[in-house]
Amino acid sequence: MKILLVGAGGVGDAIAKIAAQRSFYESIIISDYDESRARRTRDWIVARHGEHVGARFSTAQIDASNSEAVAALVRDLAVTHVMNAVEPKFVESIFAGARAAGADYLDMAMSLSHPHPEHPHTQTGIKLGDAQFAEAQQWEAEGRLALVGMGVEPGMSDVFARYAVDHLFSEVEELGTRDGANLVVTDEEGNEIFAPSFSIWTTIEECLNPPVIWEQARGWYTTEPFSEPEVFTFPAGIGPVECVNVEHEEVLLMPRWLSAKRVTFKYGLGAEFIGVLRTLNLLGLDSVKPVRVRSANGPVEVVPRDVVAASLPDPAQIGPRMTGKTCAGVWVTGWGLDGQPREVYLYHVSDNAWTMAEYNTQCVVWQTALNPVIALELLATGVWAGAGVRGPESFDAKPFLDLMALPVEDGGYGQAWGLEEREPSVGVR
Amino acid sequence: MKILLVGAGGVGDAIAKIAAQRSFYESIIISDYDESRARRTRDWIVARHGEHVGARFSTAQIDASNSEAVAALVRDLAVTHVMNAVEPKFVESIFAGARAAGADYLDMAMSLSHPHPEHPHTQTGIKLGDAQFAEAQQWEAEGRLALVGMGVEPGMSDVFARYAVDHLFSEVEELGTRDGANLVVTDEEGNEIFAPSFSIWTTIEECLNPPVIWEQARGWYTTEPFSEPEVFTFPAGIGPVECVNVEHEEVLLMPRWLSAKRVTFKYGLGAEFIGVLRTLNLLGLDSVKPVRVRSANGPVEVVPRDVVAASLPDPAQIGPRMTGKTCAGVWVTGWGLDGQPREVYLYHVSDNAWTMAEYNTQCVVWQTALNPVIALELLATGVWAGAGVRGPESFDAKPFLDLMALPVEDGGYGQAWGLEEREPSVGVR
Repeated sequence: MKILLVGAGGVGDAIAKIAAQRSFYESIIISDYDESRARRTRDWIVARHGEHVGARFSTAQIDASNSEAVAALVRDLAVTHVMNAVEPKFVESIFAGARAAGADYLDMAMSLSHPHPEHPHTQTGIKLGDAQFAEAQQWEAEGRLALVGMGVEPGMSDVFARYAVDHLFSEVEELGTRDGANLVVTDEEGNEIFAPSFSIWTTIEECLNPPVIWEQARGWYTTEPFSEPEVFTFPAGIGPVECVNVEHEEVLLMPRWLSAKRVTFKYGLGAEFIGVLRTLNLLGLDSVKPVRVRSANGPVEVVPRDVVAASLPDPAQIGPRMTGKTCAGVWVTGWGLDGQPREVYLYHVSDNAWTMAEYNTQCVVWQTALNPVIALELLATGVWAGAGVRGPESFDAKPFLDLMALPVEDGGYGQAWGLEEREPSVGVR
Repeated sequence: MKILLVGAGGVGDAIAKIAAQRSFYESIIISDYDESRARRTRDWIVARHGEHVGARFSTAQIDASNSEAVAALVRDLAVTHVMNAVEPKFVESIFAGARAAGADYLDMAMSLSHPHPEHPHTQTGIKLGDAQFAEAQQWEAEGRLALVGMGVEPGMSDVFARYAVDHLFSEVEELGTRDGANLVVTDEEGNEIFAPSFSIWTTIEECLNPPVIWEQARGWYTTEPFSEPEVFTFPAGIGPVECVNVEHEEVLLMPRWLSAKRVTFKYGLGAEFIGVLRTLNLLGLDSVKPVRVRSANGPVEVVPRDVVAASLPDPAQIGPRMTGKTCAGVWVTGWGLDGQPREVYLYHVSDNAWTMAEYNTQCVVWQTALNPVIALELLATGVWAGAGVRGPESFDAKPFLDLMALPVEDGGYGQAWGLEEREPSVGVR
């Protein structure tokens, strides 16, 4: 296995750092539009693990928006697997480049959606991943695999869902991905500040798009942003967080392979963050349409959303001033193997103090990066195999979760996951 | 009386339009940094009232930031009264220019405050109007009058307070200015939009400054922004609105001339608007420090608060798409002339439909402009007279309120005001 890692931003950097501790691949080419970022990641690996590990890593410059450039690099370097770790707007060009050059492909976010032109808050338009699933037959016919949505959410969440369906339930009512955290960022004086742990630009996009829901009787449909608020209690001391519907890949993936009455995704944004996003929308500050504004050098045109991003701390820089944990998981309701009502939350928690100490990476980014490395290892060892455009839930979940939880000294990733039994409310819901 | 009107923005324009219907002055020079704005106001007056009225109005260019330029214009045109109708940041230069040239002076907002350097949320620093009151003796010695804070709030509110002290109460507990509205702005399709009826730039400044309160036993002190929220019920169908403490001139003016235990100002911003201002502050979007941001022409530096203002509709343009009423008044508590507990709200309501039809001016702007015209008329006729730096409450309130309420056909302004008796809660508060 020869991996082309596209993107050495936060998640790409963490993927390389995690993979540096594994031996399932021949080599990894870390590529970025700005090759110095790729070199910085490789330098960290050499400093941490020595030249013998660093020797399996090289760097390259890449233009991810150009599918032909991606294909050329894949061919030149005899790449077998393209690991996409850049912004979702580049999904289609990298996906096309990998296929053109005959490589397998993995990503952590799917091709972008476009709302329904007339009824955006009730009907879907072009859905997340539609552009990729449109080519599923060709990938399958060519015997190549595109494993899409293989981060933490989507990714680990889909693996949990498959595990629940196979091993915990006889019939599933709802597969509800639920994500929450208790992260706090402080300034130099130790005062808590508003500093999202991920790009506000992308968060605005994600949260203001119409959320999508799937129901067996209705198929996919959309709602108003921030719909169906619910307080979900997260484990590991995180506690109750206000969650709302957000457009996310799980809802588009799970129903294709798993049987459930309803599939949802709710993000634990918290009341404050939801309020901020609503206000940005109300004032038009989420807009990507430039406005004319005065400056010291005369009138200029800027995009309000860019100004919002520029006014906040850079999420890549806040790790050292952040404390707390982030939790990703799936809340499953239905009937257990014994036919009795059952409700469980399957989850994984990532602690910022630990990820910063071990990887110099903040915990949200690190948790995302963990999963594609495990998936690549399962593909390299032949435990997972297949062709076509496939979600994580189309593969057996058990070997993934076993390898993830196995202690490092026994050859695993040492990342325990949890199963919390909850008081079932099926039937009354 | 020869009046130099400084500023032909919203309020200056409305002052000229209201004055055009009165005959107490010899002439008015409408001046602005952009003289075309002054000509636009004069053109409206000519179109509405004919050349014989227009003949009393002329226009001039002025640099309000330059006190010598102001003084020169006052001398050249033999001006007797300078009416300041520009942003408060120009108060000091116009105030100085008027005095240097020996004219009387009126404004609707006082010289700006600066928070206490160490304890901004408990102690005052430089207060609103301090720079003007510092020169009170000179104005008095020269026999010249500076009538400061003579808009609606401050202005009409101070007149109401004086009236209550003189005619309604034997002892006053609190003079509480309360301002609220039920204005709604819609877009072209008739959907309600977020569009403040006054400059968001100034509103941010006003609302995020530490609010000031006066108490007999304590003097002036400050609090955190948005402190002491209270739901105040406004008359004329406006109903209950959430009000919070905001730094405002009344609190600095009333205690200088009127006896009360406590003087406050609360603005009926409403929960939504308070939320918006809090969020802008949280995200640093209220900042006046430039941030670097990408643009089509490369990186540029812009002030976040300017971008917020540029993203919202221009308050001067929303009048035609606005409906509703705005209410200004003073809530007075204490003991009546009979020694019994008494609580009244003295108020004036301005209806946008009427101000747009009669003056092509939105109601908040029009209500502000009404009061300095009445004050100028009382000064021109000698009903009000005096010297020094004086607030509206230093003059007899009755002739003001009588002239305001007198029907137009009887020579008044035809603006009824209200007195609402409320269930007194003195003693239990």
